[in-house]
Amino acid sequence: MYRLVIEPHQQQGRHISLLSDQEHYLRRVLRLTIGDRFIAFNGKGSCWLVELTATGAEILEAVLSDGELSVAVTLMVALPKGNGFDQIVRFGTELGVSQFIPVISERTLLKPGENKLKRWRKIAIEAAEQSERAILPYIFPPIPFNQAITEISNLKADCYLAVARKNAPSLGEKIQKTLPSSSPQHILIATGPEGGWTEGEIEKAIAHGFQLISLGKRILRAITAPIMAVSLIVGIYDN
Amino acid sequence: MYRLVIEPHQQQGRHISLLSDQEHYLRRVLRLTIGDRFIAFNGKGSCWLVELTATGAEILEAVLSDGELSVAVTLMVALPKGNGFDQIVRFGTELGVSQFIPVISERTLLKPGENKLKRWRKIAIEAAEQSERAILPYIFPPIPFNQAITEISNLKADCYLAVARKNAPSLGEKIQKTLPSSSPQHILIATGPEGGWTEGEIEKAIAHGFQLISLGKRILRAITAPIMAVSLIVGIYDN
Repeated sequence: MYRLVIEPHQQQGRHISLLSDQEHYLRRVLRLTIGDRFIAFNGKGSCWLVELTATGAEILEAVLSDGELSVAVTLMVALPKGNGFDQIVRFGTELGVSQFIPVISERTLLKPGENKLKRWRKIAIEAAEQSERAILPYIFPPIPFNQAITEISNLKADCYLAVARKNAPSLGEKIQKTLPSSSPQHILIATGPEGGWTEGEIEKAIAHGFQLISLGKRILRAITAPIMAVSLIVGIYDN
Repeated sequence: MYRLVIEPHQQQGRHISLLSDQEHYLRRVLRLTIGDRFIAFNGKGSCWLVELTATGAEILEAVLSDGELSVAVTLMVALPKGNGFDQIVRFGTELGVSQFIPVISERTLLKPGENKLKRWRKIAIEAAEQSERAILPYIFPPIPFNQAITEISNLKADCYLAVARKNAPSLGEKIQKTLPSSSPQHILIATGPEGGWTEGEIEKAIAHGFQLISLGKRILRAITAPIMAVSLIVGIYDN
């Protein structure tokens, strides 16, 4: 189910007012219609099952979110070879990822069919149940990387692009510097395919507000990088 | 190859003097004999290939350790079902683990044969090469948990036992509290099997100097817990 982070002031009683970019995202990008349900989350530990209405959203019930992180984590992953994304969904769901955005980058070899998405969503359900999460992460249908980075500005997230051999600051350093003064509401991490992002992709990501980060001195597999990044974020914020 | 952390003052020119507990560990526990080689590491980024002599060890050559962590990380893992430890070795080696200690705990179902150890060491070699590590992590032969915890005092490590549903402080919180004033030289993390450690095992670990820690609010698989813990340590120290 889609999970929307709102500002606390957007909730008045049972009504949630939506910002214009959220309206656009829910109705145009996700194509939700009146009566469709999603999760609204205020980033402060409150979490509700809500229903889209003509004028915003209506709270149906509170959702127990004790097993949830205080920060929303979006994983944007250039699809790795074979069944690699299956593992990323399983580990990531257990660790607390809010949503997965599988992307097709220039060096992505996999061309996933409709069955893949069904399979990933099934894995997420299993992993969410097993790890006792209250909320099921949303898995977007795969889209081209260039399209994904133009749409993520709607998420109002701190966006990081993981790169190797670039002398980028480490993700650990970046997020520890923001502590304890401010805790972001939403972090997005993008990790590349085998062979990494192309120079063109890196430039476009920077132009769309991404910060380059490193995941350490070693060269990680396309499967390992997203799992490592999420583990680090969880370990730092889930206190 | 076994990796020994030494204090800088133990190195004089090409000679390394060994402390009595290190002598004991190398000659009695690991059963190394004169002429056998291992890696000595001073925890400050210097790293040598050395040879055991009658009176200590002799430096043969410096080892490029640019891809290595500034902290030695030992993973003590209660063997999970099936081929789960294969994945732990692969991910852990990529991430920078110094040594793996597979243990048989009360709830461990797997009874590994000699072939398993060979297989794990082969996976470690592949993963070390792929991730461009300078040093191959050492994988100990599996031993009972009760024996392992009595021997780890030789490692002079900060020892943590991961537990679920115990309200233990989080690993992230624990290690961030030690920053930036002091950086440990060696961290050991022990993670349990499916079903977790028994109460008796937890008590024994505490009696041997382990601190209990949590890896977050969600229930992680026996495979995910060690990978998450190492990712967090790497992300915090590998800056």
